[in-house]
Amino acid sequence: MRGCGINSQRLIRDLRDLSSFGAVGKGVTRLSYSPADVEARLWLLRKMSDAGLQAWIDEVGNVYGRSLANRAILLGSHTDTVPQGGWLDGSLGVIYALEIARCMRESGAPVGVDVVSFVEEEGTYLSWFGSRHFCGDIGAEQINAARSEIGRPLVDALKEFAGALQKAGVACAPAHLDRNRHVAYLEAHIEQGPRLEVENKKIGAVTGIVGIRNRQICFQGASAHAGTTPMSLRRDACGTMIRFACSLLDEFERSASPNTVWNIGYIRLEPGRRNVVPGKSEFSLQYRDPSSETLAYLDKVVTESIAAANRSDGVVCSSTTGFSVEPLHLDPRLSRRISEAADALDVPWIAMPSGAGHDAAALARHLPAGLLFVPSIGGHSHTTEENTSDDDIVLGAEVMLEAVSNICIQGSI
Amino acid sequence: MRGCGINSQRLIRDLRDLSSFGAVGKGVTRLSYSPADVEARLWLLRKMSDAGLQAWIDEVGNVYGRSLANRAILLGSHTDTVPQGGWLDGSLGVIYALEIARCMRESGAPVGVDVVSFVEEEGTYLSWFGSRHFCGDIGAEQINAARSEIGRPLVDALKEFAGALQKAGVACAPAHLDRNRHVAYLEAHIEQGPRLEVENKKIGAVTGIVGIRNRQICFQGASAHAGTTPMSLRRDACGTMIRFACSLLDEFERSASPNTVWNIGYIRLEPGRRNVVPGKSEFSLQYRDPSSETLAYLDKVVTESIAAANRSDGVVCSSTTGFSVEPLHLDPRLSRRISEAADALDVPWIAMPSGAGHDAAALARHLPAGLLFVPSIGGHSHTTEENTSDDDIVLGAEVMLEAVSNICIQGSI
Repeated sequence: MRGCGINSQRLIRDLRDLSSFGAVGKGVTRLSYSPADVEARLWLLRKMSDAGLQAWIDEVGNVYGRSLANRAILLGSHTDTVPQGGWLDGSLGVIYALEIARCMRESGAPVGVDVVSFVEEEGTYLSWFGSRHFCGDIGAEQINAARSEIGRPLVDALKEFAGALQKAGVACAPAHLDRNRHVAYLEAHIEQGPRLEVENKKIGAVTGIVGIRNRQICFQGASAHAGTTPMSLRRDACGTMIRFACSLLDEFERSASPNTVWNIGYIRLEPGRRNVVPGKSEFSLQYRDPSSETLAYLDKVVTESIAAANRSDGVVCSSTTGFSVEPLHLDPRLSRRISEAADALDVPWIAMPSGAGHDAAALARHLPAGLLFVPSIGGHSHTTEENTSDDDIVLGAEVMLEAVSNICIQGSI
Repeated sequence: MRGCGINSQRLIRDLRDLSSFGAVGKGVTRLSYSPADVEARLWLLRKMSDAGLQAWIDEVGNVYGRSLANRAILLGSHTDTVPQGGWLDGSLGVIYALEIARCMRESGAPVGVDVVSFVEEEGTYLSWFGSRHFCGDIGAEQINAARSEIGRPLVDALKEFAGALQKAGVACAPAHLDRNRHVAYLEAHIEQGPRLEVENKKIGAVTGIVGIRNRQICFQGASAHAGTTPMSLRRDACGTMIRFACSLLDEFERSASPNTVWNIGYIRLEPGRRNVVPGKSEFSLQYRDPSSETLAYLDKVVTESIAAANRSDGVVCSSTTGFSVEPLHLDPRLSRRISEAADALDVPWIAMPSGAGHDAAALARHLPAGLLFVPSIGGHSHTTEENTSDDDIVLGAEVMLEAVSNICIQGSI
């Protein structure tokens, strides 16, 4: 009842072929609904059909390949990229899914393998549009409101996409999550960070996706001549900000979990001239953690630090809160399937959170969802330098096949 | 042999009249060689003649009024302003000089009062151009090279200025420092800082002009994804910079003299996005002190801090050195004349350094030079909000007249 093994040459060749659509140096620019993206989707549609899947494209661009089985584990990721992105990124997970579907085709297992390539994970118009639409979580208002960075409406892109499909003689059909059919969603992705490489592991069994907090911390003092104003008479927004930021970084080091990350990404001073004491300053603070409790504690740390800063020195400190997401726990049964598969194949793995968002987060709201990482060389991501060794690519596919095969054959996650 | 006292109404009226040239709200925009500046110079020329001085304008725009005596103390400042500048600034010292020349006109003292309004103290084209030219410290190359911020050559401005004088029927003649004639230079100026006001003093007897150091401190790390890169694997140029700057500010507080001032005026992060760990950062550090020894010690503090920063954490710290001036000591006999005059009139004074440069610094290289400050309301300077109360303006003129009168009558500083 077992399927065949990963065909490593076929796997790498499919990834290379896919990377030719929108190739830029060693990387790829394949924004959703661009000509390169549409061509890549039509190529993938043919590949799915060749794999014996019943394949179609839905009205927003998701490419879906349905197996003959009545129940299926859904495997996939996305094939759109950021500008000057990497050749693997989400493509890795889509081609893994395709290859595993091919391997499991003749298995006769009670659970089959369905394959999906979601559109618009990168959010050229609307982040995770494809996966959220697949789950029924996107309304018409969101679609009508969505614009690209240069102001192009998503609806215009969708119309043009429909025209391109028609021209290619491809008819659309809806593709949606079906809880009676789909037993789980499993996605593979490059790590996009350096941890697996540094720890010399080949597989990340992802436990969850971190929550994110964004805050902007502002300081209001008074600008003054930097030569004629004695230190004791200044209300220096920069000096206060630096002392605040320094003690906040110390406090984060004390309060954070081993999985917490935090970043000060920009700083702005006004008027920003070397001979003027800054009257205003602000910086961005972003922190991420897989635990809601840790994030809530860090929220408190920031709020209390601001209150403490306002008990002294005449510079007023305040903050505004930006984009915020709660952490998401992936299904522990699926991460155990991944780690058990890695152990079975003697492949070194670690359990780890994902520091970035993925389509799996959209699916996890409705279905048991899992995520598997393979190493990123140098931790590079969203650049044309992004890469993973062929050996690691094949190893990742073999571990994923082992996990999927066990689920399909046993008929449950 | 004593002259008459300050005519306070005449003094304030002259200041108000001068401020009408280029008036902008409560302030003045009178850039060197602009039509408003030329009109103001022609007005001043007439005022000097009316005061019984032999008055002329030199080829660069300095307005010079020579008394009938064979030896003279030179009094003055500048009448050009920054854009949207204050109504007093250097004009105060020029009108003080004019008023004191009027008061001393009939004194018959062995030393007379010459009056000067230097052009271009603010450096629209070339800082302290008028006073440095008057002292013979400017060469043709410097004049030919000088450009305004928008790229206009100084020589074009000078040509246009010559045309405007010709049109007005005014002939130019050279005006130069004459060590056989000029016994000293004394300048009054608004403080441009808050110290006199805060300490409730009316006169600053300036002891010297601070030296200035400008450095740019740079950090080179590696930019990385702020979600997927664990803290231990980052080379965060911002975090390192913040800790460095914080400890440097502490070190400056420990090492500085009561007169030292320092400022971090700008900070730049690259790429400067909330979700990217900054790979590069830099900030400006400026510090000023009246003592060369203190400045040299602070230079060492900065250099050693950079060396210490480079002993840890993988982010490389370096610095570049910008515009630097050594401190300048004004003649202590002149500051004593100022403080003795204040005491004689029962006016509260302090000895203090000047945190900003003035024409007096150019003169001090050749002649005993002194500088007197009057309070700036709120410490405002180089803004249209700049102001000094009429009472304080008159008090300052009376103290200066007392000091000048003593020098003129006694025939030496």
